[in-house]
Amino acid sequence: MIKPQFSFQIEAQEGRARAGDFTTPHGVLKTPVFAPVGTQATVKAMTPDQLVDLKATLVLANTYHLHLRPGEDLVKEMGGLHKFMGWPGPILTDSGGFQVFSLAENRRIDENGVTFRSHIDGSQQRLDPEISIHIQESLGADIIMAFDECADPYDKQYVHAAMLRTHRWAERCQRAKTRSDQALFGIVQGGIYDDLRQESAEYIASLDFPGNAIGGLSVGETKSEMQSTLNLVDRILPENKPRYLMGVGTPEDLVYGVSRGIDIFDCVLPTRLARHNAALMRYGERLNIVNAQFARDDAPLDRECTCYTCQNFSRAYLRHLVIAKEILAATLLSIHNLHIMISLARDIRQSIVNGKFNEFMAHFHEQVSVKERS
Amino acid sequence: MIKPQFSFQIEAQEGRARAGDFTTPHGVLKTPVFAPVGTQATVKAMTPDQLVDLKATLVLANTYHLHLRPGEDLVKEMGGLHKFMGWPGPILTDSGGFQVFSLAENRRIDENGVTFRSHIDGSQQRLDPEISIHIQESLGADIIMAFDECADPYDKQYVHAAMLRTHRWAERCQRAKTRSDQALFGIVQGGIYDDLRQESAEYIASLDFPGNAIGGLSVGETKSEMQSTLNLVDRILPENKPRYLMGVGTPEDLVYGVSRGIDIFDCVLPTRLARHNAALMRYGERLNIVNAQFARDDAPLDRECTCYTCQNFSRAYLRHLVIAKEILAATLLSIHNLHIMISLARDIRQSIVNGKFNEFMAHFHEQVSVKERS
Repeated sequence: MIKPQFSFQIEAQEGRARAGDFTTPHGVLKTPVFAPVGTQATVKAMTPDQLVDLKATLVLANTYHLHLRPGEDLVKEMGGLHKFMGWPGPILTDSGGFQVFSLAENRRIDENGVTFRSHIDGSQQRLDPEISIHIQESLGADIIMAFDECADPYDKQYVHAAMLRTHRWAERCQRAKTRSDQALFGIVQGGIYDDLRQESAEYIASLDFPGNAIGGLSVGETKSEMQSTLNLVDRILPENKPRYLMGVGTPEDLVYGVSRGIDIFDCVLPTRLARHNAALMRYGERLNIVNAQFARDDAPLDRECTCYTCQNFSRAYLRHLVIAKEILAATLLSIHNLHIMISLARDIRQSIVNGKFNEFMAHFHEQVSVKERS
Repeated sequence: MIKPQFSFQIEAQEGRARAGDFTTPHGVLKTPVFAPVGTQATVKAMTPDQLVDLKATLVLANTYHLHLRPGEDLVKEMGGLHKFMGWPGPILTDSGGFQVFSLAENRRIDENGVTFRSHIDGSQQRLDPEISIHIQESLGADIIMAFDECADPYDKQYVHAAMLRTHRWAERCQRAKTRSDQALFGIVQGGIYDDLRQESAEYIASLDFPGNAIGGLSVGETKSEMQSTLNLVDRILPENKPRYLMGVGTPEDLVYGVSRGIDIFDCVLPTRLARHNAALMRYGERLNIVNAQFARDDAPLDRECTCYTCQNFSRAYLRHLVIAKEILAATLLSIHNLHIMISLARDIRQSIVNGKFNEFMAHFHEQVSVKERS
């Protein structure tokens, strides 16, 4: 009997939160997990070795960017994305949909797909479900995503049409897929509308993907709208398959998402904040390291943090690096910020395994309030 | 009896080449050694951990830059340069002289020192021997340098005057120095003129510094002028003290310098080339990774190289990173380029210990010729 390349085992559960093992061809993902984003086949300012030191397990890369540059054929010829970027663990590629729809005026949607202009050279490009799957098969990630349309969450009529198109496209993605060593995840859309989200979750669940994602969140809606969507979708998506909350988010979002059965998260926030000179703290606080108050501050970013940056460097040094425009600033801040998110996901998992997630969550929210008041 | 904080033992010698152990308060330097340059208290695009992985032992930092930003008082307050930049091993600071004299129109020299304008904010600044030593004592490196004047090497009258000033300033530096845990090195000047170099070497040697440096090379003179200067100075400087060839240079320069009794080298070349998309090769060749010929080249920069970059990444990937303007390009190319210079110095040392330096040098020059012909 051939061992299936993908399987999802729930090791422990507390309320709706679960600690899982998601087996992929490149290793077992311990969930909940936070994935750093490596848009152009590199997590910005980080070597793969540094990601390993952070105990990162899953890395995301972007189909849109890699299609435009260097092109999926080149990546395939170089042995696929894992070998190309030197990342031995599981990789997830998005479908390109989110990026294309972010291009706003520079794209045109039809029933079959999307025509758009490259942000690099203005050349005309085309993506549709079949092309997206073909690109993702050439890249060779472990988890690939259905080509969806992420619409403005507040325009109901449009959200509805886009959702129906996303459903049709999801089926086309399933038919287009040929590789058995990649798991294709479906994506629930529907904006902020409960009726649409319900319809979408039911429809996507019915397609029996090996995993399901929630898209169209963290795109401008309020926190309570996001939470209400997660509550609703949680009741519909199958529990025996991994769930991925796309592009989310903050420490608070991570804790909330897990409490609604989410297993996988990704976000550019930690590395993007780093390149904007901001340190992310455990309870969501942000610290702009350029502030004059840190000029002679010999404390680390966070005295309790165990990351390489906090173990070795002062706020004064980090501020100096930023002001002197040194590359090391981005690297050291990225290490810290990624550590915050990756270790938070790991700690959450441990609390579920220990049956202490509710306690963990209560303590977390208490600390968030303390920080907000201070 | 108190153990002296500095000592220099010659472990092996072959011809004029020597393998030494230079003991400093922050560890023993195995010489010959190549020091990466950390101008602003960071070797550009590298973490200290990555330098440790490269087996870097000595790091250089620039007095001029750190005086202007963040200022030596801040560095001192933060516990000194070692702690500030997270480098536990030996550090060398230059005197600021070379940078100030590079400012050309923006500085004015008098017998007492130099007045100049900051390249950062145009503010008027002053450096002289006493100020330079004071700054270097605040920074707290293991090896500090006398404040010298590095003149245009071809203007004999001026070179002569600058050399005499450098000699007077060297004595002032000795008198200004107060810390016993720093070794102050004197600097030989004299441009390309044998009579001046001889006078300078004899004078500086007579001042009995714990180590001696050769300045004013690699500033525009020909290779044979540099070699002739090294031959001459080698016969004069004391053999029982470490010798430092400032700001030099290429793999070929390293091999030649060692054959003339040089122990310490530093140069920005490896990290500067890296930020200009060039890989440095063992025999001095340079490879511009942006060239289209590397677009689909799945080979590493150098198949025989054992550095992290060559063990994990293809030329095609490095080219992609450069074209996509990813920070990781600078990091990975810096790792490779520094490895080339650091491992070359280490291999040279081993060949001296094994009594095989002449063989090593013959093979090296043969390979240089082969590469130049190909």
